[in-house]
Amino acid sequence: MNFKLSKNEFYKYLQIVAKAVSPNSPVPSLCGIHMNVESDAITLTGSDADISIQIKLSNAMNEKLNLNVIETGSIVIDSRYLLDIVRKLDSDEVQIEIIDGTLTRFFGGKAEFKINGYRPTDYPSIDFSVPDTHFVMNANDFSKMIENTVFATSTKETRPVLTGVNLVSDGTRLVATATDSYRLAKKEYPIQCEEFNITVPSKSLNEIRSIFNNNEDLTVAISTKKLQVFNEYILIQSRLLEGGYPETERLIPKDFEHVLVINRSDFIRAIDRSSFIKTDNMTIIRLQINDLNDITLTNKSQEIGESNEELTGLSYDGTPLDISFTGNYVMDAAKALNSENIKISFTTEMKPFILQNEGEDEGILQLVLPVRTYN
Amino acid sequence: MNFKLSKNEFYKYLQIVAKAVSPNSPVPSLCGIHMNVESDAITLTGSDADISIQIKLSNAMNEKLNLNVIETGSIVIDSRYLLDIVRKLDSDEVQIEIIDGTLTRFFGGKAEFKINGYRPTDYPSIDFSVPDTHFVMNANDFSKMIENTVFATSTKETRPVLTGVNLVSDGTRLVATATDSYRLAKKEYPIQCEEFNITVPSKSLNEIRSIFNNNEDLTVAISTKKLQVFNEYILIQSRLLEGGYPETERLIPKDFEHVLVINRSDFIRAIDRSSFIKTDNMTIIRLQINDLNDITLTNKSQEIGESNEELTGLSYDGTPLDISFTGNYVMDAAKALNSENIKISFTTEMKPFILQNEGEDEGILQLVLPVRTYN
Repeated sequence: MNFKLSKNEFYKYLQIVAKAVSPNSPVPSLCGIHMNVESDAITLTGSDADISIQIKLSNAMNEKLNLNVIETGSIVIDSRYLLDIVRKLDSDEVQIEIIDGTLTRFFGGKAEFKINGYRPTDYPSIDFSVPDTHFVMNANDFSKMIENTVFATSTKETRPVLTGVNLVSDGTRLVATATDSYRLAKKEYPIQCEEFNITVPSKSLNEIRSIFNNNEDLTVAISTKKLQVFNEYILIQSRLLEGGYPETERLIPKDFEHVLVINRSDFIRAIDRSSFIKTDNMTIIRLQINDLNDITLTNKSQEIGESNEELTGLSYDGTPLDISFTGNYVMDAAKALNSENIKISFTTEMKPFILQNEGEDEGILQLVLPVRTYN
Repeated sequence: MNFKLSKNEFYKYLQIVAKAVSPNSPVPSLCGIHMNVESDAITLTGSDADISIQIKLSNAMNEKLNLNVIETGSIVIDSRYLLDIVRKLDSDEVQIEIIDGTLTRFFGGKAEFKINGYRPTDYPSIDFSVPDTHFVMNANDFSKMIENTVFATSTKETRPVLTGVNLVSDGTRLVATATDSYRLAKKEYPIQCEEFNITVPSKSLNEIRSIFNNNEDLTVAISTKKLQVFNEYILIQSRLLEGGYPETERLIPKDFEHVLVINRSDFIRAIDRSSFIKTDNMTIIRLQINDLNDITLTNKSQEIGESNEELTGLSYDGTPLDISFTGNYVMDAAKALNSENIKISFTTEMKPFILQNEGEDEGILQLVLPVRTYN
């Protein structure tokens, strides 16, 4: 193996592949990036137990790459050393060559490194075959779907399936749902695809979102074992979470008795201002609506003190309401919406309430459970 | 106590005072900022055991402050709540008023907060009197003096006095010295002041540097108990470290047998590139100089591999040299210098060597102990 290429372009792709590499993997070779050099292309692979990333580099993919393969071959190099060497080289070009067994030479400018690699045969074989069930989705839409839901996943490992986002297709609609059982976030998209029902770890979805963040079309492929998201050159695949995802549709109320429309950013800022007042380390905020001209948000703690905010609604439909909730759940929900004004729909003071965009709902629904208080 | 003032200007000064406040102080009132309101000024005080900051705010000091005192008085408010409230208010102006005992009302826009404060009588009395021994120094010079030395202080508490920077005046010269006993940094300035010899905690010096970072003249005042640095409105005072500071002058070699002049940034980058190769978690770099055209920097580890850098010197005076050192000590030392080219002066391969600016030395000297290796 012996090749030269543009240092800066190479580094850009190494950074992407390295996102899947866990530097302290119990499998030593998985601390590395696998490089497979063919006559006109290099395939980079990085993986941990959960997520794998593969990129195929060639001059056809990126002419600034200036790839020049002198000899084909493959090697696995510890990702920390590989990124550190390539990043810090003073030269425009880097040459990488196996000189003896797994000893690999890096050369650029006046600097030379010889690094002990891992044998490619020690690198786990990863099945990158594309599942039959797949559909096409714009990268921005995929990214927004994750952004609008992933914050509501659970961070506790007591019910592992709740740490992921549930993705369900009924043939024409993709529904993404996340819940930690205190709040729920849901986002729908029209798709054309066979039926499926999978739950993807939130960490994997965040990585996918960070890598594909432009306006291109992505293929999303699903099997009972994995999720794959890819464009022509970059493929990311994630394991799935096992266990049935709870039926959440029946939790979402359909009939409402109190509906408030309010400016989204005013509402977020008012909650944010009073969030420092905590009782037992929780921010419990009380919303009292008498009529459109008498809406207050209060937060009291025996120890710290209290906050009072007067809110101005845009419309209110219903009898007076007095409800309490966890401040940051409602703030997260309001932040995941995107219209200037939002609609908050309540049934009773002890039932979940929902937050939606006013007007065009864009398939987003945010649900929060109220908190019982003894005021 | 009742006053109004510009939210943004007030917040700017609260941030400075809060640097001295430890949010988990065992003395509850020290978690707060003390505000003393007189008819035309507010004095803010923050303190922990090590450092105290006092700022006197008035319209004369900053006309954008728009201070309007309705009633004088004083209170102590938890600094986290105080900063959070003032930062997040939507209004241009904030009004602060004691309404009952220590219950303090904050008002701005449509938001109102009532916070339980601490009694000013519970706030420790801090002696801000100015010591007789003092001199004037430009804030930029003070800042550079700290920057050029503080990194060489010890982070271990085994010899507490080494965690600070030693400041000595002989009447005409201020000498700042820091050492962790493996390397030493020294910076001199001409001053006019009585003799003193104090050691100041590095954390205090870093805070002083972060607060006074412009071109103004500062007064630096010294007693056997404290260091004070102040301008017309802001005063910072730090406790001193107890215990005699070691005599370091005799450690600095005066006669040299090998002197290399080299481009500073080339040298730093070459060390930086090979620093990822560690043996027992240390980066030991070997410098071999045969003559001006044969200078190499190498770093080898059985496990990881090796690096080789060819360096180009600007001049070399001496017989061939083969010396090893801790990479980041030499990198820190070279970074603390500021000339384009630096002079590295060696005596023998087991004696400390020094790094200085080429030409105008600006009173900076950096010393590093070599490492014994068995190549």
